Amino acid sequence: MTQTDIIIIGAGPGGYRAAEYSAKNGLKVVIFEADRMGGTCLNVGCIPTKSFARNAEIIQTLKDSEAFGLNDLEYQFDFHKVIQRKDEVISSLRSGIETLLSHPNITLVKAEAQFRDAHTVTAEGENYTAPHIIVATGSVPKTLRLEQPVRRRVLDSSDLLSLDHLPQSLCIIGAGVIGMEFASIFNAFGTQVTVVEFLKECLPMLDSDIAKRLRKSLEKQGVTFHLQSRVTAITDEGVVFTDKKGKVVTVEAEEVLMAVGRAPRVFDHFNRAGFDYSERTGVAVDEHLQTTQPHIYAIGDANGRQMLAHAAEMQAIHAVNQIIGKSDDIRFDIMPSAIFTLPEAACVGLSEDRCKEQGIDHVCKKSFWRANGKALAMNESEGMLKLIASPQGEILGCHAYGSHSADLIQEVSALMCRHTTVEQLAHIIHIHPTLSEILQSAAET
Amino acid sequence: MTQTDIIIIGAGPGGYRAAEYSAKNGLKVVIFEADRMGGTCLNVGCIPTKSFARNAEIIQTLKDSEAFGLNDLEYQFDFHKVIQRKDEVISSLRSGIETLLSHPNITLVKAEAQFRDAHTVTAEGENYTAPHIIVATGSVPKTLRLEQPVRRRVLDSSDLLSLDHLPQSLCIIGAGVIGMEFASIFNAFGTQVTVVEFLKECLPMLDSDIAKRLRKSLEKQGVTFHLQSRVTAITDEGVVFTDKKGKVVTVEAEEVLMAVGRAPRVFDHFNRAGFDYSERTGVAVDEHLQTTQPHIYAIGDANGRQMLAHAAEMQAIHAVNQIIGKSDDIRFDIMPSAIFTLPEAACVGLSEDRCKEQGIDHVCKKSFWRANGKALAMNESEGMLKLIASPQGEILGCHAYGSHSADLIQEVSALMCRHTTVEQLAHIIHIHPTLSEILQSAAET
Repeated sequence: MTQTDIIIIGAGPGGYRAAEYSAKNGLKVVIFEADRMGGTCLNVGCIPTKSFARNAEIIQTLKDSEAFGLNDLEYQFDFHKVIQRKDEVISSLRSGIETLLSHPNITLVKAEAQFRDAHTVTAEGENYTAPHIIVATGSVPKTLRLEQPVRRRVLDSSDLLSLDHLPQSLCIIGAGVIGMEFASIFNAFGTQVTVVEFLKECLPMLDSDIAKRLRKSLEKQGVTFHLQSRVTAITDEGVVFTDKKGKVVTVEAEEVLMAVGRAPRVFDHFNRAGFDYSERTGVAVDEHLQTTQPHIYAIGDANGRQMLAHAAEMQAIHAVNQIIGKSDDIRFDIMPSAIFTLPEAACVGLSEDRCKEQGIDHVCKKSFWRANGKALAMNESEGMLKLIASPQGEILGCHAYGSHSADLIQEVSALMCRHTTVEQLAHIIHIHPTLSEILQSAAET
Repeated sequence: MTQTDIIIIGAGPGGYRAAEYSAKNGLKVVIFEADRMGGTCLNVGCIPTKSFARNAEIIQTLKDSEAFGLNDLEYQFDFHKVIQRKDEVISSLRSGIETLLSHPNITLVKAEAQFRDAHTVTAEGENYTAPHIIVATGSVPKTLRLEQPVRRRVLDSSDLLSLDHLPQSLCIIGAGVIGMEFASIFNAFGTQVTVVEFLKECLPMLDSDIAKRLRKSLEKQGVTFHLQSRVTAITDEGVVFTDKKGKVVTVEAEEVLMAVGRAPRVFDHFNRAGFDYSERTGVAVDEHLQTTQPHIYAIGDANGRQMLAHAAEMQAIHAVNQIIGKSDDIRFDIMPSAIFTLPEAACVGLSEDRCKEQGIDHVCKKSFWRANGKALAMNESEGMLKLIASPQGEILGCHAYGSHSADLIQEVSALMCRHTTVEQLAHIIHIHPTLSEILQSAAET
């Protein structure tokens, strides 16, 4: 039996941050990872898609090459180089994580850990015990249940990232973050992309006005969308669905991506630890990330709360702070997120739709990329930002699409954490010429 | 005699913002502009250089085209298209300003206005009077005084922006913001660029460690720097200077750019208004931008305080607020700025050098682009950020170079306005994967 201060199951963004932060605070850590260091985010999620997205962005920019003074532009697009660069990026970041985890207080066990009881886990026949355990097992892709059995290959996001050739055509089921990012990327690469979505608009977390504009932008770039469409079968030809008028349609496609969300990754051996969990909603936790066994915490996608890498990282900090008895003021209710389509989109806090649904008194202030000097200078004039505030001026949220949206939303997010009013925001000096002036402009209206 | 509520001399960023904001607050405005709407910034400053910089950025990115999967890349660089796009950007933004100034409360007079007395100005033989006058006459490029008369053509930044061909070689005198931006841009375009600077490092407002790294980055890209070098003559061959070892050197160059700063634009007719000013330091103003004639304000470059477009704009708001008796909390002491080289740089508040010089107790926290996932995914791994704080954790400044630096500094700037500590910054959730995590990483160290 190996005794330690803290056991962490999973070395994704939640797990490795928890290990790093625990070690920094003097705790002895044993962290288990059966798969690759860095979890979904690094290996088959945020990072590889952002590497692809950068390639896509460059190709997209070059579509206007003459405006940029590049006459008679020619090149051969080589998808293998795209894959190669992605793999290099991942391995460079993975070695960074391995360096982090080489801290003397951290023991990394590259094996699957299973609960034996509420205080013990087993890996490769060895038992480990600790007064505190953090479950950071991540998530897995969801799949649609269809009446007919599916006989053809259907990809999930991991599979799509490991294709060794560029498909001629791709049908994406689901217009959430993953579906939209891949739609945008593969469309830029030259694949014919069709997206089939059950809801009436893409990206339901986003203000619907912004989401609609973004979708129309992708349509203009060549992506086909079928909204309010229910997939009924996946056949050798492609994807069969009932469209919004009740018509049965088949989209032929060389490859099919299933991108209907992710589910917390839970295991039967959790039962031996005695905390509550379910397949659908993940490990049950309270506001301090404690499971129903208070010495066991669940962070990141595993608890199904806010399935974002940066949420996992900050939950890691908060869980460890609980363990070491340190208070913090992390605002999990102010959770920004970004969608790296071309152009990118991002949001924090309430949308206009949510305010209306919930009957929240609000004012909505808009501004546009086309009125911003830097945006025009960059040839990135598409975009809109909505700043949502209470009638008293308290900032309630901000939703945007357009170049550098993620950075703009980050600023709003920081200001919301610091209890800033719209008027105070309007009086903060913004560098000219930058896209951040779009935010100031909205505040001034 | 035309009577109005407020007279504004100059329609640059200070002037047109003052006009817009006055009109919005119900004041009748007469604004005079003898030249083009938008002033230096729009016509021969920030905006055209950022349009050029975007072209340069794309060319620079394409130097690594194989990494991006673009094999056998070929194009003909057409400088005329670069000029054409720049002119389109300017004219689009200029028409935006004209729309702003078409407000019913605003009368735009496209003529030079001269003071007749402290309450009256004259333009085209017509007299105008108002209880409040705002001087927003901008600035002009400075020139070096040399012993020998200069017989060859020497360009200022406006001239360089209106060249109709790409020079083979360019010698830039001065490594301030203007010199560095043009060095970076024309180097990317393929011009052989040499910079001669009197001081021992470029960009003196920037932390010297950051400035040095940025300079070395430009050197690696092909720009030649001669620091601690005093220009003694400009001849038909090029620029003659004494280098740091006392050796006389001549840099041959097709074109020479004089970029040794800008001076407030003042006129003899200011004497008739009776307020203090000088050629060197501009119009004297107090903290509320009031001249020694309290009903006359001077904003923007004309007062020589903080020669930045965004400073001018916010000074405009503050001056009008004074006139209408409205208080505001604009923090002119928290003045961010950016330098749009490739990669870009930006800063706000104190640098480490300034803290040391002034004996200010401080801690310095660093982080690097190469450790950031988004930076690697973007293939933009070069950059460093320094966050400067008091020993108690109050943020005193932040200096950085690297992709999206301006946005990162903007966030710090906003947080400084909101009295944020380093610990509070570390607890603000930052979107993964974004470059803003570099800032959070620095705060966590």
